[in-house]
Amino acid sequence: MADKKKMVEEITSMDVDFAKWYTDVVKKAELVDYSSVRGCMIIRPYGFAIWENIQHILDTRFKELGHENVSMPMLIPESLLQKEKDHVEGFAPEVAWVTHGGNEKLEERLCIRPTSETLFCEHYSHVIHSYRDLPKLYNQWCSVLRWEKTTRPFLRTMEFHWQEGHTMHETAQEAIDETEQMLNVYADFCEDSLAIPVVKGQKTDKEKFAGAEATYTIEAMMHDGKALQSGTSHYFGDGFAHAFDITFTGRDNKLQYPHQTSWGMSTRIIGAIIMTHGDDNGLVLPPAIAPIQVMVIPIAQHKEGVLEKAAEILDRLKKQFRVKMDDSENSPGWKFAQYEMKGVPLRLEIGPKDIENNQCVLVRRDNREKYFVSLDELETKIPELLKAVHDGLYNKALQNREKRTWSAKSIDEINKVLAADTGFVKAMWCGDLACEEQLKEQAGVSSRCIPFEQEKISDTCVCCGKPATKMVYWGKAY
Amino acid sequence: MADKKKMVEEITSMDVDFAKWYTDVVKKAELVDYSSVRGCMIIRPYGFAIWENIQHILDTRFKELGHENVSMPMLIPESLLQKEKDHVEGFAPEVAWVTHGGNEKLEERLCIRPTSETLFCEHYSHVIHSYRDLPKLYNQWCSVLRWEKTTRPFLRTMEFHWQEGHTMHETAQEAIDETEQMLNVYADFCEDSLAIPVVKGQKTDKEKFAGAEATYTIEAMMHDGKALQSGTSHYFGDGFAHAFDITFTGRDNKLQYPHQTSWGMSTRIIGAIIMTHGDDNGLVLPPAIAPIQVMVIPIAQHKEGVLEKAAEILDRLKKQFRVKMDDSENSPGWKFAQYEMKGVPLRLEIGPKDIENNQCVLVRRDNREKYFVSLDELETKIPELLKAVHDGLYNKALQNREKRTWSAKSIDEINKVLAADTGFVKAMWCGDLACEEQLKEQAGVSSRCIPFEQEKISDTCVCCGKPATKMVYWGKAY
Repeated sequence: MADKKKMVEEITSMDVDFAKWYTDVVKKAELVDYSSVRGCMIIRPYGFAIWENIQHILDTRFKELGHENVSMPMLIPESLLQKEKDHVEGFAPEVAWVTHGGNEKLEERLCIRPTSETLFCEHYSHVIHSYRDLPKLYNQWCSVLRWEKTTRPFLRTMEFHWQEGHTMHETAQEAIDETEQMLNVYADFCEDSLAIPVVKGQKTDKEKFAGAEATYTIEAMMHDGKALQSGTSHYFGDGFAHAFDITFTGRDNKLQYPHQTSWGMSTRIIGAIIMTHGDDNGLVLPPAIAPIQVMVIPIAQHKEGVLEKAAEILDRLKKQFRVKMDDSENSPGWKFAQYEMKGVPLRLEIGPKDIENNQCVLVRRDNREKYFVSLDELETKIPELLKAVHDGLYNKALQNREKRTWSAKSIDEINKVLAADTGFVKAMWCGDLACEEQLKEQAGVSSRCIPFEQEKISDTCVCCGKPATKMVYWGKAY
Repeated sequence: MADKKKMVEEITSMDVDFAKWYTDVVKKAELVDYSSVRGCMIIRPYGFAIWENIQHILDTRFKELGHENVSMPMLIPESLLQKEKDHVEGFAPEVAWVTHGGNEKLEERLCIRPTSETLFCEHYSHVIHSYRDLPKLYNQWCSVLRWEKTTRPFLRTMEFHWQEGHTMHETAQEAIDETEQMLNVYADFCEDSLAIPVVKGQKTDKEKFAGAEATYTIEAMMHDGKALQSGTSHYFGDGFAHAFDITFTGRDNKLQYPHQTSWGMSTRIIGAIIMTHGDDNGLVLPPAIAPIQVMVIPIAQHKEGVLEKAAEILDRLKKQFRVKMDDSENSPGWKFAQYEMKGVPLRLEIGPKDIENNQCVLVRRDNREKYFVSLDELETKIPELLKAVHDGLYNKALQNREKRTWSAKSIDEINKVLAADTGFVKAMWCGDLACEEQLKEQAGVSSRCIPFEQEKISDTCVCCGKPATKMVYWGKAY
């Protein structure tokens, strides 16, 4: 068995090569394995348990807000995908096509869903007749597939898991409220459960979802200063309703088109967790979604009474926490390194001396601080420490973002700050696509979002000098 | 709004046309909608909530037994599917082929998974090295796709949801134990949670899973006397391990092949629930998986205090049951019929007179028995009644099966009983495929299973008259 030193040496330092560090972590922490289909990953038990915890928190919240889960087919006929013009232009180039079923060639090609607006719309056209049928607040947990050229585990994979909410409303205002509400659900989830601070805002027309009137987004900053779009919520107006002929009889007894939203969060968010909190010892998991919140490690476990006491503590803690014990033959040092690699928020060490003193040692994963805790106080002390880990992670991530967010009044200024570091640049924009494209070309940044919390950096567009209408976050993104 | 009588008239009587009754129920109870892809169904909120309850019970049990969830890709390269000879022969004719990704033709076709043995094996070849890596006890919740010619909602759809467990073991005995354990999990689940009695047994070689050494099955009898295979568990030996070159260093330090199982239960089981318990008023749901266990219906709800009292009861019961209230403007009669159609196990009626008497009326869905219950006793009386509904459903289903299970000593005898009714026929078999095929031809029955609980009906094969080796359940199946 590898000793502690050897294991730690096995991953690349994040400062040496962040991309390599990332790949090392997803492999060594046993989150994924590569499959023989390019760009499709195998999510291993430890990785999938993270996703299950994410699902549980989000699904509970969705249901509290009145949403119901459904299941749509995984296949979409080509003619159905083509019904909404902007949507098909956005997605057709990146779908996988089924052309044969069994031994026969199909009359019409079917694509594997890249997203399910068209399927939901077809169904809604069957079941929405009256204002009494509204709102429809549906969600689906599934995987979708997009034919990507370059892929990386969690961050960009051909197939990925997500949830996609699809709702229909009587009025535009109700739909807009839903769009905003769900963006807030995502933002609160990131901050409260994942310890990831996010910037809330609207996408520019260039960056919005194919077919949407408006796309709202939460943008997080990774450890390396790059942005990661972490969840989006789209307002569609009644465009799809027209394309799919979805109408209802209103309160005024007239035929109307309903107003639509969709919103999604995907396994990409696991990439965000890794790149926000991880360090050179591996993964660091926020307690709310950690598959194991406390790892019990017996010290000198061959000594009389140690394993019994450790097992007794395990049984006690199981009632309140996700907790496991490693009583394998590996050395304590190897175990320490192993569960640091896996990002377990708290380690509980218990040895003969501790037992004598009716105490144990708790060690935080995020900063390695040690606490000697009376065995009588575990049920109150552990939640405090888990909260401290969460807060520590959040504050560190927030500090990173604040340290790396700058304002700029010209492209030169943008280039100057980004020559020294990577991060977000706040700068004014006139609203023209041409300027957005020029920033991409001359400074290598894309618009991350027009934040809801606006500031005035200057009066004029950072690019063309014309009067500015919005302050925009610019940056390099995953 | 339709009144009660009108609604009830809308579904075909099960005695008139069982198939039409089935289709009516899945539509009117709002379980599914048809999509524009042939054979792929849309599972609506009420139908999907049943599946979520099934998932929750099974998933909890799987995890108690040490299984972990993972996610495999939805696509399988043709060459990977072909690695195990029997398996590819069984599945290749019924898969959907992806031939194009984006705008390019693929070098190798990919099929949408019809089942995932090949994907699990590929992964196992990466992660199993030593006996210390065993057992691997993995499960996956997903949808799979098989290119079926004729389809019916839940019973046979091209795409269907299921769970597929895939495990690897150090010894053959351990794998056989796992296969049997998981069959028992399915049988217990059917009986304890779905109120469906099942026959446990082994499939004949003709009926076993493509590539398996042995397939175990649970067979349930539907209301019309036909069989429905409700869950299967397969023992693979080390055949796939050889085909996929999965080896481990054993305790004896020698290279060995691990022994494998897989086991699955699918959304088909919802078809079994419908066809086992349903009646001419619609769906009848076993309480353990009913999305709504108790439906509160206020009577004379415009009268003072009624809605308030009903809401108070709703709040109280929410802590313990899945309960909803319908305070819409529809008539009580319409509501009664509506929630009978949806199979809600208990209806709670509360009106002004009930309130005066500090009581309410509880009505069982299965037999329409009415109970006047003190409002002080709801928390103890409702569990009793839910249990009574469960037991009532189970006993009715068991009686149906017992009434319709016969023994026969010749093909003539089989034909005689099946001319009068549909059901299971117990008859002896020599073990020859030829006799099995002859029974299909001459009596229209297939072997359902070789039950674990054997009886001796006669000494000789029902078909050829040679010495019999096994007693077999024969019948017509879905």
